[in-house]
Amino acid sequence: MPQGQPASVPDDGLTTRQRRDRPLVVVHTGIGKGKSTAAFGLALRGWAQGWPIGVFQFVKSAKWKVGEEAALRALGRVHAETGAGGPVTWNKMGEGWSWVQRQISDSAESAREGWEQVKRDLAAATYTLYLLDEFTYPMKWGWVDTAEVVEVLRTRPGRQHVVITGRDAPPELIEAADLVTEMTKVKHPMDAGQKGQRGIEW
Amino acid sequence: MPQGQPASVPDDGLTTRQRRDRPLVVVHTGIGKGKSTAAFGLALRGWAQGWPIGVFQFVKSAKWKVGEEAALRALGRVHAETGAGGPVTWNKMGEGWSWVQRQISDSAESAREGWEQVKRDLAAATYTLYLLDEFTYPMKWGWVDTAEVVEVLRTRPGRQHVVITGRDAPPELIEAADLVTEMTKVKHPMDAGQKGQRGIEW
Repeated sequence: MPQGQPASVPDDGLTTRQRRDRPLVVVHTGIGKGKSTAAFGLALRGWAQGWPIGVFQFVKSAKWKVGEEAALRALGRVHAETGAGGPVTWNKMGEGWSWVQRQISDSAESAREGWEQVKRDLAAATYTLYLLDEFTYPMKWGWVDTAEVVEVLRTRPGRQHVVITGRDAPPELIEAADLVTEMTKVKHPMDAGQKGQRGIEW
Repeated sequence: MPQGQPASVPDDGLTTRQRRDRPLVVVHTGIGKGKSTAAFGLALRGWAQGWPIGVFQFVKSAKWKVGEEAALRALGRVHAETGAGGPVTWNKMGEGWSWVQRQISDSAESAREGWEQVKRDLAAATYTLYLLDEFTYPMKWGWVDTAEVVEVLRTRPGRQHVVITGRDAPPELIEAADLVTEMTKVKHPMDAGQKGQRGIEW
């Protein structure tokens, strides 16, 4: 229950309002559960504010995030039909990304294409909230250059919030981020021999 | 990216399916961000499975969770109108809880009333996913007896998942839980003198 009060007031020449409304880079990392789920929870808040939400799913999976995708797409339809909330765009790796005309079989190339699209959208200020899900992995694996990511985020125009999830966030990204949470595993049912189940793991 | 494989297979006489489909008690604790947002992200997964979702908001606040509430209620309406997803019931402390006819001014009594309702719903198997948001505080403050909570959870009928969020989860609850994640603060904009902002903090 944070009280919403900063620990100190910096000497940066900004008003409280200017400082408060600065766009954020948010990172959810660590080996615990909840990195992506918390990011999708943030997307709910942004949706309720009427923000255009852009989800970029950087790791291909048959069943992961199907629940979040169904729910976010439903919220996007609510916006289209009633005007409530904001529009939602869901971009998925491994299905050719929505903007790529050809099917890409190479994961590294697909991740790079996804990042190129994120760069174009940031330059055009397409969304207010970007959810780059599992985006730490393309950085970790060297498919996308972390220094470039940091520079693109640092110089992005306007008020665009960017949430990045995944284990092993690069130190340069953590350094550049405004809000970093590490999800730590305390106890997991797989430790007790229980496999992942529908509705909980996906 | 968990691989979905348990570290060991217990000698508990259960089949893999029985073990996998066991109802879970999930706890999100720690001082970092994302405890509630991750719980609401889980609610999206449950919703997409068609599960009846019961949210119980145990701490009163003017603005917290307004985004989540708007989005979850919108998803509830999607279910009512199209049959997609599951029904959503949102119960809020400080607004008399939905089932209490009189207004309660005392927070401790209100929390206890909320817990009594959760007990009734668990006994009746009203929901498949219970989100007891900020429920660690009534336990921490002694308004609700932790031993009773653990016993009620242990003996709940059917397949009902319960997610509990909040700082300082009692050790007995952690012991009883199946999945516990601690959200650890690595970096927060309030440290840099930035106040909470709409769409991010609520």
